[in-house]
Amino acid sequence: MKYTIGVDYGTQSGRAVLVETATGCVRAQAVKEYTHGVMDEYLPDGVTRLGPDWALQHPMDYLEVLYETIPAVLKETGVSPQDVVGIGIDFTSCTVLPVGADGLPLCFDPVLAKNPHAWVKLWKHHAAQYEANKLNRIAQERGEAFLDRYGGKISSEWVFPKLMQILDEAPEIYEKMDRFMEATDWVTMMLCGQERRNSCTAGYKALWHKRDGYPSKDFFKALDPRLENVVEEKLAVTLYPLSTKAGGLTEEMAQKTGLLPGTAVAVGNVDAHVSVPAVGITEPGKMLMIIGTSTCDILLGTEEKLVPGMCGVVEDGVLPGLYGYEAGQSCVGDHFEWMVEQCVPPYVFKEAEAADMGIHAYLTKKASALKPGESGLLALDWWNGNRSVLVDVDLTGMMLGMTLSTRPEEIYRALIEATAYGKRMIIETFEESGVPVDELYACGGISWKNPMMMQIYADVTNKPIKISASDQTPALGAAMFGAVAAGKENGGYSSIFEAAKVMGKVKDEAYYPIPENAAAYDRLYAEYKRLHDYFGRGENDVMKRLKALKAEARRREG
Amino acid sequence: MKYTIGVDYGTQSGRAVLVETATGCVRAQAVKEYTHGVMDEYLPDGVTRLGPDWALQHPMDYLEVLYETIPAVLKETGVSPQDVVGIGIDFTSCTVLPVGADGLPLCFDPVLAKNPHAWVKLWKHHAAQYEANKLNRIAQERGEAFLDRYGGKISSEWVFPKLMQILDEAPEIYEKMDRFMEATDWVTMMLCGQERRNSCTAGYKALWHKRDGYPSKDFFKALDPRLENVVEEKLAVTLYPLSTKAGGLTEEMAQKTGLLPGTAVAVGNVDAHVSVPAVGITEPGKMLMIIGTSTCDILLGTEEKLVPGMCGVVEDGVLPGLYGYEAGQSCVGDHFEWMVEQCVPPYVFKEAEAADMGIHAYLTKKASALKPGESGLLALDWWNGNRSVLVDVDLTGMMLGMTLSTRPEEIYRALIEATAYGKRMIIETFEESGVPVDELYACGGISWKNPMMMQIYADVTNKPIKISASDQTPALGAAMFGAVAAGKENGGYSSIFEAAKVMGKVKDEAYYPIPENAAAYDRLYAEYKRLHDYFGRGENDVMKRLKALKAEARRREG
Repeated sequence: MKYTIGVDYGTQSGRAVLVETATGCVRAQAVKEYTHGVMDEYLPDGVTRLGPDWALQHPMDYLEVLYETIPAVLKETGVSPQDVVGIGIDFTSCTVLPVGADGLPLCFDPVLAKNPHAWVKLWKHHAAQYEANKLNRIAQERGEAFLDRYGGKISSEWVFPKLMQILDEAPEIYEKMDRFMEATDWVTMMLCGQERRNSCTAGYKALWHKRDGYPSKDFFKALDPRLENVVEEKLAVTLYPLSTKAGGLTEEMAQKTGLLPGTAVAVGNVDAHVSVPAVGITEPGKMLMIIGTSTCDILLGTEEKLVPGMCGVVEDGVLPGLYGYEAGQSCVGDHFEWMVEQCVPPYVFKEAEAADMGIHAYLTKKASALKPGESGLLALDWWNGNRSVLVDVDLTGMMLGMTLSTRPEEIYRALIEATAYGKRMIIETFEESGVPVDELYACGGISWKNPMMMQIYADVTNKPIKISASDQTPALGAAMFGAVAAGKENGGYSSIFEAAKVMGKVKDEAYYPIPENAAAYDRLYAEYKRLHDYFGRGENDVMKRLKALKAEARRREG
Repeated sequence: MKYTIGVDYGTQSGRAVLVETATGCVRAQAVKEYTHGVMDEYLPDGVTRLGPDWALQHPMDYLEVLYETIPAVLKETGVSPQDVVGIGIDFTSCTVLPVGADGLPLCFDPVLAKNPHAWVKLWKHHAAQYEANKLNRIAQERGEAFLDRYGGKISSEWVFPKLMQILDEAPEIYEKMDRFMEATDWVTMMLCGQERRNSCTAGYKALWHKRDGYPSKDFFKALDPRLENVVEEKLAVTLYPLSTKAGGLTEEMAQKTGLLPGTAVAVGNVDAHVSVPAVGITEPGKMLMIIGTSTCDILLGTEEKLVPGMCGVVEDGVLPGLYGYEAGQSCVGDHFEWMVEQCVPPYVFKEAEAADMGIHAYLTKKASALKPGESGLLALDWWNGNRSVLVDVDLTGMMLGMTLSTRPEEIYRALIEATAYGKRMIIETFEESGVPVDELYACGGISWKNPMMMQIYADVTNKPIKISASDQTPALGAAMFGAVAAGKENGGYSSIFEAAKVMGKVKDEAYYPIPENAAAYDRLYAEYKRLHDYFGRGENDVMKRLKALKAEARRREG
């Protein structure tokens, strides 16, 4: 029996899985919480204060994950390192760090470490909005074609705004960095000793296009004269598609992980994208929803279509030879968590405790007793703005239909339904743009834990939903790419398509639309759509005016 | 020193105050909870089940209030009955009961008592909606002019729908009743031994008009042939304006209350209306807000104007010689109570407890730290429909602007602000209809307990607000009418205007608009108004469609 290892880097922890290549069965897993977690108030010195909306990480935490979890899964299973044919990793993205000429993060230098810009900027570092606005404005003025591939707007989370923020606020760090790397590429480089950047993150987060390349030097110069040659100076011209082998494990890494030197290492991947083959998707028409605090949707297509409000379309961006489309909802689990923290009264917590249930499970149980439409409530799922299809961070939440009889479980269900309507809006937009969506797949904790929510999604979208068979879908996907990097001759696979056929799995039970519910939801969705357009497409910009008044009030206060 | 007694009949209890006629100072008060409270599930036999939306009371509870509270205030103060010159009462309305030829409630008959229709129908008995709909439909078809005096719609709470429900469901009770009386008139009759019905409730609740009288026999016949002569058969043709003396206290009542026989008894009054002179209002332009679970607004005018969405306009309806306008918001304190019960999380209760504060006081304290607009939230105050100015029970609540940072105190403040915007909408509608509103007065528990709310009302309406000096405003008002019934020659007053000058009082401190806040609220109110019209005036009837879907879902549920 041969094995492959996948390491999934999440926001709070990293996790390794040891998987049988011949079956896709996960034999063992191990988790390591990041020693420094998410740093959003202070640097590790405990003294240097971070600004609002900052979110950093410590790159040593990523290496610790390798050093602890890989030996742990080997030890637990007794599997011999000889039988481990490959390793792949996936990461949150866009999570980026400045690296010196020696390949080490600038923050490893005790002097530079005092500067917050020397550290890893986590995907949810939101302090580069000024730079994102500037980039968007200039791109629009210049009529840059790339904008359309990203739903018309570049996020402050992505590579260039984050890089521009360094240039603006810490030019000395910008100067000192030899390259600016996605964490997934940096960890891969640490594993195999050579820089082999993946084309997936370049495409989705760094405006790279397989045929057109990066934006022009003119464009970068317009952003800032010092950026004219940014690609050559700080990024990389040569990129490697997913499922390429990045190299073999270095001696040092072999020693620290317990694997053999030379073990095949796959090019770095991204948590959402790597999950697609892990549920067995290898063809167009099947949309994978990675459901968590937010939701990321990945869909394959055979052509490059411009879909309004999507996050990006990248050739080979998910699987080689296909176009990978990404869309997203910026607030899903976060809605429910917000509600539980801010809006659920003590009596419900007491009832949940008496029923020996978690609060989410209890609210779900009560909400399950309701029929579509029975709460009389309707919400817009914009507590954290709207990513797809409106791409507008200034939109806010809305709920209507409340009466004095409205109960928490009704509000809870209305929030779930709102995210389902948002999903349908995304699906319809893809379909109207010529990218078909026939079936849905779901992974992520909520897809396992909340059957009511999955049934609502099936009813609202009127499409069947299959659920990932693994509760560690991204790690499994990373392991699959490790097996492909190893190649068939070494006990792996010759392509990710072959690997997916064997190792990618969904549960036997799927969710199918219930016609009566689907009919009721058709009518409710029509109401959602009308309010979505009324508040979201400029008919009544009250949400933006309220946000402006809020900012004014805070300034007066300040 | 002479004294006068006022008895205020609320929803859960009755309260007597003993007041100095020369000063308006309340010397003593006593409260009696109703033995049977509000009966909304069973009759007192504990067996006979009531239908949904029923709300009954036991008339003996009203008499017990007299028997207990009047002796109590006399005893507490040592005031001699010789020095008590008059007594007045006020009641919730429309609270009505069927009475036999002997003047006793039909429910005092052990046989009839088994029929729920023999009992007092409390103001909030809402089971006569079918009859109200029928009445409104027929009145509209016939183009009955009276509709315009009541904002275009007759409430199911009022006299004729309640009477029609008896006729529909218990014709034998309808047959047996000699008259159908407002509780305020019945208790007054019990006090003085003669029927002297007031014209205030007749005007506001029984479609009576000083010059046009009741609706025509033709109209009543169109409702039901048996109703053709309903006025003569069950109501009363002769009505007495407020501040008339109804009679002198009977021997029996004198014995039971400890007062002297012949003590002047005023014509029965209504809790909201009786409060106007108790805060010293005797002229047009001053709107009194009686703020409780809902809010009732009373305003005086010199002419009869038709104001869209008001509850009614009645000549002499509040003070003789003036037109009394009534408007209302069907959900005020109820919003905040709903929120505290259904939407405030445990940590806020814990903080309140740690601060040794009630939950409302604590939320108010936290909300007070916010500036207008700072929450980013905006709500429509329609959790219980909208009375004035839209007169639409099918409207529901709406809130927008929520983000993941939204906190309970922000929602709490947004609900308070929503009721203030609703108030401004009422005021502007009066002003646009030619009924000026220059100043606001407030009474009711919230006006004493929540200075933040009163300041928000002043800022939103951009008008000063004076607060009743008494925490028992209606009872004080009733006592004042008792003093007027006694007359000046007996140590009372020759008119309610004179009584109001001396006995009606507001607190020294008033609330004045803060220009900066008023300016911010002007902009927020503009947003409220736009959404008010969008959802409330037919642009998007989503609330009604959701209500219809809700009803459908419940039917499917069966």
